[in-house]
Amino acid sequence: MARILVINPNSSQSVTTSIDEALAPLRWPGGPTIDCVTLKEGPPGIETQAHVESVVEPIARRVGADTADAYVIACFSDPGLYLARETVRKPVVGIAESAILLAAGLAYRFGIIAILPTSIPRHLRYVRSLGFEHRLAGDRALGVGVEGLADRAAVIDKIVAAGSRLRDEDGAQVVLLGCAGMGRYRPELEDRLGIPVVDPCQAAVARATSLLALGYGKIA
Amino acid sequence: MARILVINPNSSQSVTTSIDEALAPLRWPGGPTIDCVTLKEGPPGIETQAHVESVVEPIARRVGADTADAYVIACFSDPGLYLARETVRKPVVGIAESAILLAAGLAYRFGIIAILPTSIPRHLRYVRSLGFEHRLAGDRALGVGVEGLADRAAVIDKIVAAGSRLRDEDGAQVVLLGCAGMGRYRPELEDRLGIPVVDPCQAAVARATSLLALGYGKIA
Amino acid sequence: MARILVINPNSSQSVTTSIDEALAPLRWPGGPTIDCVTLKEGPPGIETQAHVESVVEPIARRVGADTADAYVIACFSDPGLYLARETVRKPVVGIAESAILLAAGLAYRFGIIAILPTSIPRHLRYVRSLGFEHRLAGDRALGVGVEGLADRAAVIDKIVAAGSRLRDEDGAQVVLLGCAGMGRYRPELEDRLGIPVVDPCQAAVARATSLLALGYGKIA
Amino acid sequence: MARILVINPNSSQSVTTSIDEALAPLRWPGGPTIDCVTLKEGPPGIETQAHVESVVEPIARRVGADTADAYVIACFSDPGLYLARETVRKPVVGIAESAILLAAGLAYRFGIIAILPTSIPRHLRYVRSLGFEHRLAGDRALGVGVEGLADRAAVIDKIVAAGSRLRDEDGAQVVLLGCAGMGRYRPELEDRLGIPVVDPCQAAVARATSLLALGYGKIA
Amino acid sequence: MARILVINPNSSQSVTTSIDEALAPLRWPGGPTIDCVTLKEGPPGIETQAHVESVVEPIARRVGADTADAYVIACFSDPGLYLARETVRKPVVGIAESAILLAAGLAYRFGIIAILPTSIPRHLRYVRSLGFEHRLAGDRALGVGVEGLADRAAVIDKIVAAGSRLRDEDGAQVVLLGCAGMGRYRPELEDRLGIPVVDPCQAAVARATSLLALGYGKIA
Amino acid sequence: MARILVINPNSSQSVTTSIDEALAPLRWPGGPTIDCVTLKEGPPGIETQAHVESVVEPIARRVGADTADAYVIACFSDPGLYLARETVRKPVVGIAESAILLAAGLAYRFGIIAILPTSIPRHLRYVRSLGFEHRLAGDRALGVGVEGLADRAAVIDKIVAAGSRLRDEDGAQVVLLGCAGMGRYRPELEDRLGIPVVDPCQAAVARATSLLALGYGKIA
Repeated sequence: MARILVINPNSSQSVTTSIDEALAPLRWPGGPTIDCVTLKEGPPGIETQAHVESVVEPIARRVGADTADAYVIACFSDPGLYLARETVRKPVVGIAESAILLAAGLAYRFGIIAILPTSIPRHLRYVRSLGFEHRLAGDRALGVGVEGLADRAAVIDKIVAAGSRLRDEDGAQVVLLGCAGMGRYRPELEDRLGIPVVDPCQAAVARATSLLALGYGKIA
Repeated sequence: MARILVINPNSSQSVTTSIDEALAPLRWPGGPTIDCVTLKEGPPGIETQAHVESVVEPIARRVGADTADAYVIACFSDPGLYLARETVRKPVVGIAESAILLAAGLAYRFGIIAILPTSIPRHLRYVRSLGFEHRLAGDRALGVGVEGLADRAAVIDKIVAAGSRLRDEDGAQVVLLGCAGMGRYRPELEDRLGIPVVDPCQAAVARATSLLALGYGKIA
Repeated sequence: MARILVINPNSSQSVTTSIDEALAPLRWPGGPTIDCVTLKEGPPGIETQAHVESVVEPIARRVGADTADAYVIACFSDPGLYLARETVRKPVVGIAESAILLAAGLAYRFGIIAILPTSIPRHLRYVRSLGFEHRLAGDRALGVGVEGLADRAAVIDKIVAAGSRLRDEDGAQVVLLGCAGMGRYRPELEDRLGIPVVDPCQAAVARATSLLALGYGKIA
Repeated sequence: MARILVINPNSSQSVTTSIDEALAPLRWPGGPTIDCVTLKEGPPGIETQAHVESVVEPIARRVGADTADAYVIACFSDPGLYLARETVRKPVVGIAESAILLAAGLAYRFGIIAILPTSIPRHLRYVRSLGFEHRLAGDRALGVGVEGLADRAAVIDKIVAAGSRLRDEDGAQVVLLGCAGMGRYRPELEDRLGIPVVDPCQAAVARATSLLALGYGKIA
Repeated sequence: MARILVINPNSSQSVTTSIDEALAPLRWPGGPTIDCVTLKEGPPGIETQAHVESVVEPIARRVGADTADAYVIACFSDPGLYLARETVRKPVVGIAESAILLAAGLAYRFGIIAILPTSIPRHLRYVRSLGFEHRLAGDRALGVGVEGLADRAAVIDKIVAAGSRLRDEDGAQVVLLGCAGMGRYRPELEDRLGIPVVDPCQAAVARATSLLALGYGKIA
Repeated sequence: MARILVINPNSSQSVTTSIDEALAPLRWPGGPTIDCVTLKEGPPGIETQAHVESVVEPIARRVGADTADAYVIACFSDPGLYLARETVRKPVVGIAESAILLAAGLAYRFGIIAILPTSIPRHLRYVRSLGFEHRLAGDRALGVGVEGLADRAAVIDKIVAAGSRLRDEDGAQVVLLGCAGMGRYRPELEDRLGIPVVDPCQAAVARATSLLALGYGKIA
């Protein structure tokens, strides 16, 4: 039976738990096992380029040490994606690229909700490097740090506020959550925003599941 | 239990059977039921714009008359996609757009194998309208009609020839089969080409499965 | 003497009459005859994808049954353009593509005035498929249905309001009317907006006239 | 009665005569008068940037001194287009931009036939500045100077050779003649190439005629 | 010892003096001599297309008559750049293209501050012809003529106002001064705007210095 | 007096020596001191993603530990660029981005010479993320490893072969060396290829020199 390893590269077990919880709809009898693990070497949250770089090699080591059939790197910066792909000859997917691919199939223009304003230039570079800049309606920041994401009501209000501007001012028809661990808010967010919301961890695990079912291996 | 209706818009039962056969890896206990049906009103093969247009309304009627949870239009022209989406408030996916989205996650540049040279301008317009022109390495035709697709050995040789040129001359890192019903050739094609091959019907059903699992509804 | 057949695919004779009236400047002694006809099978107005698809085959039949020298499909969705082109070996032009080509020669960035907000995604896809997305400054909707277009003063006020925002907020240097039958308002609209306004029916007939004069046949 | 002034900015009366001859299909009773004049100050042919620049101000003076209703600058470098537009509040069109707009309505991808290889970078910059780079299939040079264009048979053979490569290797569906004065070869070229050929002078005069008929003034 | 000739194509000696002053940081013992000269034939300021064209040939003559090792055309329209490059087999750089290249290395998206609104379409065409449209965040005009640039305090206030909108509304991360002679305001502007400011004359002379040091000749 | 630190992230002292030698033209009395150092922690050559990632943090530490005024990361993968920029508030430039910016000022279309074929997808992603894909004519590999670069005659022959194809088949007007340490071959390569050749290390140090002279700080 196939197994997907989901690596949360920050050391916050609560984030891993949130990710795990949001993946419930992707678990079914006979379907792949989905194991969510916390990268102990990671920082509590990934907010800076230093945080991103610090987990690149640990992620690849974690990938190389696990005999899973596919791997998900559960941080919206897709840290270490290309190194991990060089490490194993099996599918390794990032949650940001997976969210973009899912969103691109839900509507023409998507908006991204960043945690911090400083992530936006990194998002723009990444969206461009994937060739999706024509699809990006906008990128707006919540202005809270990873630790601030724990206050459910406040976070949802902020996401709804940013998402509403993406929808109304920028023309986004679908909104991507630019952070792992908020997938469980999707139902409430979709209710309040009235447009689809993409949780990147769900997107990535669904994609890994498809790749495994169809027998694809290493991603180029 | 969820059910996906796959509509082959041409009237060739043998194509429907081939599609059905290639979907075996997407069937599992507890997973969605996948029903493949033939559109009796369709032409034997969809080769011209007249063929495309002739099935648009029949497809939408078929979609509207079936209580499936998601729908796949199994022709690489994605005929009637927007009309079908207007008809039901559930996911309707085309196989061409699904193949492109899957390919875009397998490698940077994809090539398309068209059946006939006359399909190529239609492909180019469609790829552009989806915003993926930067990803398209090339589009090359087999030069056989739909009826000629029955000769397995000859077809595979022609696909390998076209795919090799896409790979070597155009820089394609993954190849899309621009036709329904050839998914069962994937293993042999991947062996001979050495790069991933996308069967659009598999891509579409896998995508529909993900959309259902994640609770997405109507596509914008 | 050459003859151009202008097909209004909706069944509103009053729209056909308006189109016909706006074409007066393109009629001259010795020039092509311009015949405007109403597609009886069409819906009263073309507002939905179902309306668009319902006229595709009737338009092609009408084209195939008429020995005109060139054909104009007078609906801003350019319904059935590719099917009609497959039907006759003579020029068939759509009014939307013609309006875009004319506008692209009048200024760098054009804005589109849609009738309904639901038309905007269709416009965006179409503009992209033609490769003009860099020229599109914006697309704004009047928010009135086709039937509401009869109230001249109200419609002109709404067009001026939308056009002013396209000009001032979006940077449009020329405005396209995203609907047939409003060409007679051009003088008043240009007076009030201070920038050129393109009536797509005028644009299409002028283009058909040029193609005939220069001896071009079927459009690829 | 409207009058269009076509200015051949090189001093070769034979080129002006050729241009004039190719415009016959655009003259009809009641249509605009089309006057072709030679810019005496111009060089015998426009092959270098120095040639281009040397005619910019003379063209504008010629435009300013003539009470025509519209003006065509009949050199494929569109020299002095923006200056001429600043000089009169009437339509001034260049033949290169007009050829591109006409070609863009005849097929998706066009090829350009340059006289000299040194013109190609200038063409590319210009096509880009107009936003049509996605439509350009290729640009190939004849490798003859303006004076060499007089030998009809040799020139046609060279154009057919370059056009065939544009069609077969670059995917051009329509070919633009990147030079004034070759419009009379269109029938033979289209016969031999099997795809439409655009004479930029014809394209420009047809466009000017349309702009006048529809009452457009200064181009932004 | 290498020498760079900086040609101010307007006849305002005060502008030349300002340019010269802002180049102080690029002068060092052993570095290239930087000579700033005023083009006597030029208009007092370059505001219209007629002004631009009037200096094209005088600039090329000035370039051809001077044995400098590299040349800078110090007007943001880069007038006569291609003609000057055809005249000498040494580097000739324009200040607008140089400013764009420098800005593209300082941040992802740049904004341009135009003197007059009428310059903006010219800027857009030029940015596109260089292939940098994806990097352009916006272009906003001061609305003062060249003569109005003398009032230091007023000009700085206006630049800060336009630059703030480019930064806050358009997302510019760096601002280009779309005019020669304002480089000495850079420190104050950077202080008030909080983002880098590019003086095109400094950018061009720095680039010329690099090209000379590395032994590059004629620019293609 | 300003100082630029050039960090060769591979541990090959001979490469550092070659880089240093090629920088001679950028050293002048009174100009910045240019110190080239070898990153001892680096691998002998940077050929894989693992090599790239392994030097990211060591480079940043080296940058953080040195009080230079500007920093150059002398590997064509620009490893650790964003991390180093987060580390110090001074200019940090990569040699690949610097080579692209220099090339973009030398001609319209540039070609890249990769060492190994596996570097090409990485180059394409990077060129796209910088927004220069329209300028890239092609990317061709030598097919030798870093160690094979020592054989001067063989390497030059291979570069000339790849550069000739970039020039003749792909339309490159300038060629970038996709590797550090080959700058000293520029004169011979330019002689044989007849077009400019960009050594990325020279490009980066020239750019750093300009940024320092003009007082720019941290790059966004």
